[in-house]
Amino acid sequence: MSQQTQQKPSAGDEGIVSRAEDYGQWYLDVIRRAQLAEHSAVRGCMVIRPHGYAIWEKLQRELDDRFKATGHQNAYFPLFIPLSLMAKEEKHAAGFAKECAVVTHYRLKSVDGQVVVDPDSKLDEPLVIRPTSETIIWDTFKGWIQSYRDLPILVNQWANIVRWEMRTRLFLRTAEFLWQEGHTAHATQNEALEETWRMLGVYADVAENVLAVPVLQGRKTAGERFAGAVETLCIEGMMQDGKALQMGTSHYLGQNFAKSSGVQFLNKEGKLEYVYATSWGVSTRLIGALIMAHSDDTGLVLPPKLAPIQVAVVPIFKTDAEKAAVLQEARRVHDELKAQGLSVKLDDREGLSPGAKYYEWEGKGVPLRIEIGPKDIEKGSLCLVRRFVSDVAGETDQARRKRAKSFLPRAEALAAVKPLLDQMQKDLLDRARAARERRTRVIDTIEDFERFYKNEGGGFAWVHWAGDAQNEDEMARRFETSIRCIPLPEDIPAAARGEGKCILTGKPSSQRVVMAKAY
Amino acid sequence: MSQQTQQKPSAGDEGIVSRAEDYGQWYLDVIRRAQLAEHSAVRGCMVIRPHGYAIWEKLQRELDDRFKATGHQNAYFPLFIPLSLMAKEEKHAAGFAKECAVVTHYRLKSVDGQVVVDPDSKLDEPLVIRPTSETIIWDTFKGWIQSYRDLPILVNQWANIVRWEMRTRLFLRTAEFLWQEGHTAHATQNEALEETWRMLGVYADVAENVLAVPVLQGRKTAGERFAGAVETLCIEGMMQDGKALQMGTSHYLGQNFAKSSGVQFLNKEGKLEYVYATSWGVSTRLIGALIMAHSDDTGLVLPPKLAPIQVAVVPIFKTDAEKAAVLQEARRVHDELKAQGLSVKLDDREGLSPGAKYYEWEGKGVPLRIEIGPKDIEKGSLCLVRRFVSDVAGETDQARRKRAKSFLPRAEALAAVKPLLDQMQKDLLDRARAARERRTRVIDTIEDFERFYKNEGGGFAWVHWAGDAQNEDEMARRFETSIRCIPLPEDIPAAARGEGKCILTGKPSSQRVVMAKAY
Repeated sequence: MSQQTQQKPSAGDEGIVSRAEDYGQWYLDVIRRAQLAEHSAVRGCMVIRPHGYAIWEKLQRELDDRFKATGHQNAYFPLFIPLSLMAKEEKHAAGFAKECAVVTHYRLKSVDGQVVVDPDSKLDEPLVIRPTSETIIWDTFKGWIQSYRDLPILVNQWANIVRWEMRTRLFLRTAEFLWQEGHTAHATQNEALEETWRMLGVYADVAENVLAVPVLQGRKTAGERFAGAVETLCIEGMMQDGKALQMGTSHYLGQNFAKSSGVQFLNKEGKLEYVYATSWGVSTRLIGALIMAHSDDTGLVLPPKLAPIQVAVVPIFKTDAEKAAVLQEARRVHDELKAQGLSVKLDDREGLSPGAKYYEWEGKGVPLRIEIGPKDIEKGSLCLVRRFVSDVAGETDQARRKRAKSFLPRAEALAAVKPLLDQMQKDLLDRARAARERRTRVIDTIEDFERFYKNEGGGFAWVHWAGDAQNEDEMARRFETSIRCIPLPEDIPAAARGEGKCILTGKPSSQRVVMAKAY
Repeated sequence: MSQQTQQKPSAGDEGIVSRAEDYGQWYLDVIRRAQLAEHSAVRGCMVIRPHGYAIWEKLQRELDDRFKATGHQNAYFPLFIPLSLMAKEEKHAAGFAKECAVVTHYRLKSVDGQVVVDPDSKLDEPLVIRPTSETIIWDTFKGWIQSYRDLPILVNQWANIVRWEMRTRLFLRTAEFLWQEGHTAHATQNEALEETWRMLGVYADVAENVLAVPVLQGRKTAGERFAGAVETLCIEGMMQDGKALQMGTSHYLGQNFAKSSGVQFLNKEGKLEYVYATSWGVSTRLIGALIMAHSDDTGLVLPPKLAPIQVAVVPIFKTDAEKAAVLQEARRVHDELKAQGLSVKLDDREGLSPGAKYYEWEGKGVPLRIEIGPKDIEKGSLCLVRRFVSDVAGETDQARRKRAKSFLPRAEALAAVKPLLDQMQKDLLDRARAARERRTRVIDTIEDFERFYKNEGGGFAWVHWAGDAQNEDEMARRFETSIRCIPLPEDIPAAARGEGKCILTGKPSSQRVVMAKAY
């Protein structure tokens, strides 16, 4: 039967610091052990390793299918934005000015055997590397839009963008990152607003039903708005340390970019009008959310829908005779699960012990492992090992590991895999939701607020708010918290409904907002 | 029955110049009419419009599936390459120096209301925007490779790259373009060489069986090699004007990049050795190949395997009663074809005549159109119109259009669609192959060579060659031709086999090469 030998980590793999000990280091350790990404030779830029990229590919597919189902088409716009174009929408330019990488030359040359930038190749106009593409896209839309018949335009772009960052963290904040940016053009404000909310809904759907991370949906305050937007909507998730992570934004841009780019259309009444716009985006940051929301002190935990490998089949044998029989059965199990449409990996690598293989697949977050040894063949059974099971208070690590294991007759086991994975997907969401509830408070006084963040670990605080931008700054200075979102009235839980007084200023407030520390 | 009203092009769409009149302009006209791409506000950079991007997505899928089937995984490496890293492999740096866009600053600021590059944000080390990623990837591989157990590494990256170009042409040559670049690391020269040829084979397979463009496979001469490669292999297609287009390259890099990046591994004998490398890539240039190989004076022609819309269903009606019946039937036909796994578009747009719709789908290269009118419903038949039919000498345009149409009983028609599309895919390849044969000559004297290119339109010339780089330059000066590839001995057609004398120098030559003018 499956030998549960505890395997020493191989050289260069020093294990994982626990969350309790050092949450920040734990995050980096999980990434290293799962081989998701690493720092590169370029300050602030990461290399996304194959396992990390495979998760991104699955997530892309989930998002892209939903974008297409809501009528969007993909397109591609230039990496470069001429400085003069970037500068057209004033607030937008001001908002991104401090993080723009700029191309100024287009040639290298060799001087005394040293490769240098050729000073004679200076560009007449510097080119900004897109930090987002509104300006170049609206310059293009100008040529596509004459009348209301040309609207709506619903495009999306999968691309890399660059926002120069001084303090970076793998996936969560890097100078270059991968994302998608939707850009739409509409004949009416209503239609544009509907689109803005529709895409927020798509993001919330993916967050909850694919990433298994419950999110709050709502509006940002003026100070947190996208530079150039009239309204910014967001989804906010909670990480295991109680901090919020903004997981996606959807912007109603009004006519701002149409005006700065001069994009008018002839409406049904035959009058010239400026076009209404939206933009919306999510990025590789979502992989950071995934890690921080679900992983444990053993390593990465993946929702089955995003697992590049959903099931790892590990053969166990000692003698040559056992090897032949076990490998044959392992291959059969692999093939039968693959025929069910699952992503299965038969781990028949030589020279690695079963324990070393368990260690690797656990660290990489593979949801289900099937161990097959000579006794399993004899009994006609299979041993299914779940990567995680729901928490039971006070349970020992050994008891938990035992509970994660099921021995089932072969046919029953094979039929159980899909429902088990579905259940695990659901369990992850439930677990994350319960964790959020435990760290959510309805708070009415600044003293309780202070205690929540200073003594009780913090989390999401539903508080009444009627302050201004200066008051928001004060809260940030005193508690390192910010308003994560102004929820929709209908999404406010019963206990947090009704009018009240601003937690800081005491002014009357019609509705609570959600405050938290954030990444 | 289908009304074949000749529709005037809408405003802004001035039709297409014929290939005979102006091949270069025809190419741009086809792209404009099919809405594949356009120039952007950034010199040399293009916008890939949704229809163009959808073709790229289908091509990506075909390539990516084959990369994964041959054991490769996707990953992502930084856009930026520090200048010092770029400079490490000398020949590589020299080869790309003249086309490198360089980031020198990372911030903008406002001076007297003008947005400018902040001179205080100058980078200590300039960053080159990747023109290709060998240097940054091998710098990363250094951390991944210690022993032969870590090999091979088989990764691929889908990315944008920038090569500063002075004379650009949509898809064929732009400053920024999209591509994939495979990078592999091996323990032995043999294994790396096998990989180099294997991926060339994958490219040839996609070119012929997906793009329907027949290609020659072979080696490049030293002068045409990738900067830093030991050997460059290529596939070369022929466009309708007889010019060659390099459609993909696969490089054997030897130990050059391992040496410049210091990547050694402990081999099975326990000795340190430098790692062997390959890299290989194809780009959005393939869409240019597609257009130039197949399209006609009406517009884009697409191989069914890459058509974002394979079948357009166009309803035809006059009265409201007809409309209801026709739309219902059109929807049914749409649904039944979709259930077959085909990409179908039901064109039920209001306010557009059927003729205008035909015009649009023909220009966009949709392989098959189904016209449905009241009489078709009455007869229980459908009218299938192919985008192209094989050529018949001397046929009038009207006769050809008639031949492209089939009236079939409904069930028969629906069953015929898939085989018809498969046949069209095959016909396109056959047509392109026949066109290439017509413009291919085995040539033995420089006089015949000159006549071929100056009087007979040119094409591929199989000639004996024993010249050096200077001789190649002379051929380029005199005839604008270059050696497109040195084919494998076994791929040389019977008529071109055997030894002979170099067409320029008269020196003995053991094998012919293929010369042509090229894009």
